[in-house]
Amino acid sequence: MTTPNPRVIFAKIPEAAQGLGGLPLPGEHLVYDDSPVIDLENVPLNGGFLTKMLVLSPEPALRERMRDPKLQSYTTPFILGAPVIGFGIVVVLRSEKEGIKVGDYMYGQTPWEAYTVQPYIEVVPNPGGAFPLTRYASLLGTPGLSAFVGFEGLAEAAPGKTIFVSAGASGVGSMVVQLSKLKGMKVIASAGTDEKVEYLKSLGADVTFNYKKESYSSFLAKNKPFQVYWDNVGGEALEAAIEHIEPFSHIVCCGSLGDYQRAPEERYGIKNTTLIFKRRLTIRGFLVPDLIPKFAGKFFAEIPALVAQGKLKGQESIIEGLENAPDAFLKMLKGGESVGKVVVVVAKE
Amino acid sequence: MTTPNPRVIFAKIPEAAQGLGGLPLPGEHLVYDDSPVIDLENVPLNGGFLTKMLVLSPEPALRERMRDPKLQSYTTPFILGAPVIGFGIVVVLRSEKEGIKVGDYMYGQTPWEAYTVQPYIEVVPNPGGAFPLTRYASLLGTPGLSAFVGFEGLAEAAPGKTIFVSAGASGVGSMVVQLSKLKGMKVIASAGTDEKVEYLKSLGADVTFNYKKESYSSFLAKNKPFQVYWDNVGGEALEAAIEHIEPFSHIVCCGSLGDYQRAPEERYGIKNTTLIFKRRLTIRGFLVPDLIPKFAGKFFAEIPALVAQGKLKGQESIIEGLENAPDAFLKMLKGGESVGKVVVVVAKE
Repeated sequence: MTTPNPRVIFAKIPEAAQGLGGLPLPGEHLVYDDSPVIDLENVPLNGGFLTKMLVLSPEPALRERMRDPKLQSYTTPFILGAPVIGFGIVVVLRSEKEGIKVGDYMYGQTPWEAYTVQPYIEVVPNPGGAFPLTRYASLLGTPGLSAFVGFEGLAEAAPGKTIFVSAGASGVGSMVVQLSKLKGMKVIASAGTDEKVEYLKSLGADVTFNYKKESYSSFLAKNKPFQVYWDNVGGEALEAAIEHIEPFSHIVCCGSLGDYQRAPEERYGIKNTTLIFKRRLTIRGFLVPDLIPKFAGKFFAEIPALVAQGKLKGQESIIEGLENAPDAFLKMLKGGESVGKVVVVVAKE
Repeated sequence: MTTPNPRVIFAKIPEAAQGLGGLPLPGEHLVYDDSPVIDLENVPLNGGFLTKMLVLSPEPALRERMRDPKLQSYTTPFILGAPVIGFGIVVVLRSEKEGIKVGDYMYGQTPWEAYTVQPYIEVVPNPGGAFPLTRYASLLGTPGLSAFVGFEGLAEAAPGKTIFVSAGASGVGSMVVQLSKLKGMKVIASAGTDEKVEYLKSLGADVTFNYKKESYSSFLAKNKPFQVYWDNVGGEALEAAIEHIEPFSHIVCCGSLGDYQRAPEERYGIKNTTLIFKRRLTIRGFLVPDLIPKFAGKFFAEIPALVAQGKLKGQESIIEGLENAPDAFLKMLKGGESVGKVVVVVAKE
């Protein structure tokens, strides 16, 4: 007996000429395909296990993989015609693997399809505990972990300092805002809608602004000093932060949301890099896996408890159905409309 | 009896609208004034001492001080109508200060004038020894010290690594090239004339190019990998280095020679800052005084001996006469024509 096994296919490279700019459009670059079927009872496991997708997490890093394979980058490119692969939470339906049993919740990089036979992903710690599973795609997932390891490792955070966080209402940004407040820092944070600015205030941000109403540079000129800048945006925000940050400050480059929609040649050009030495700045970039060995233990020791105690909050913008995953991805990349981390709930057990 | 005491006056802010772009022109912004006189025997010392200027060192950092005082920067602005102040080597003619006697050679920040009554500058170590005094304005002066402290403190230099040095034939650049070779590194270096490229080869650089004949990006694409970038130039060179450097690399921002001639809004805009996190780069800027406490001791313990042994070389482009100091400063800022650190010999004892 077969069951439908729909999936989301990487069908076309956005802006093929460059491969790294432009938005992937649902139905064109990311295509929902409901034609595959699977025999859940008899599909060979080859020593692995069969999982059912429950939750998937659309994240900016996936955009990087939707590129011309000739372009080098920090991730392997997706294969045209194959499913998108991203962070997801699954439940085990059958298993031939020692230590993994039916009903286990697991998470990690997994294809965007309803059912998958896979060799290994990680066991979810504490499933069915104090958190809904979607938390593992937000506060306790990639965004939360990214924020935590970068903040611990590179931000030189300290009580009394002021931090500026761009895209402060994003999954990563909202976590950085809250970690900074827990650390005893003053927080300046920006977002692109008034609703998000309100959200920032609810998270404890001290000074907030809507960068679509007042430019980064104009606002920071009036609201400095600050000694740490957490960059989720790049471009204009990074230039404004370099322009107004205190000497001997630290900038953490975590993302460039402002650049994902643009081809490389259309990106904003930063003209004030001469201030890097005049201000004696330290600018560091990281990707989550670099810092996981050093800080993941601390993350899992501290953060779930803070979430359970309500000391760390995080809104989620939940979208239902695998068929809507391409739209959810686009919504996340474009930002704007929704407050909170975009999470796709594919199935409820 | 009076003696002429000519000086170089900061007479006008270059490109007043911005105050930080454009070249200072001799006779307009920097004016040689031979009208002052001084009574060398009777001028009151007020507990200080009287010095005669021997050598002065035109350095890029002076340009920063020739600005509109309303613009904040890392140095205090020069006073309009007062002499330029910069690094110079002087000899003491009279002294009322304990420990400082006639005939002592001293160096430090001193006005661009023939004779000065001053409260204190530093005693030159080992004068009249193995080096001509001009070395204290090149290898053993600000350029050499800048290169040394930045290289020791921030370059993460190590045997087997490859470093790219822009403006490799400059005072700082030529020192970094040689320190890198002494460390056992491979050196890629750029300069703006074929004569300078030959000079780079004579210093031991392994791979060299004239950036006016082939772009930074094109050359680096063919000659990577490299793991350290020493940036003396900014703009296009920095962008190309970010584009082609290895992941987990280090960039040291020491200067932006490419920007001194341009107003801020005309500067080159770097569009690939998104690679800072994708490549996990560490970009750090410094000014010499920041690192002097930590590394100056090592500099004076190691570098004079290496200079004496001929293991560190440095050409000087010597210009004679205080009246030519404004031209010398312009020549240094524009680069191009001359090979070696520009040094002005004001008097020979």
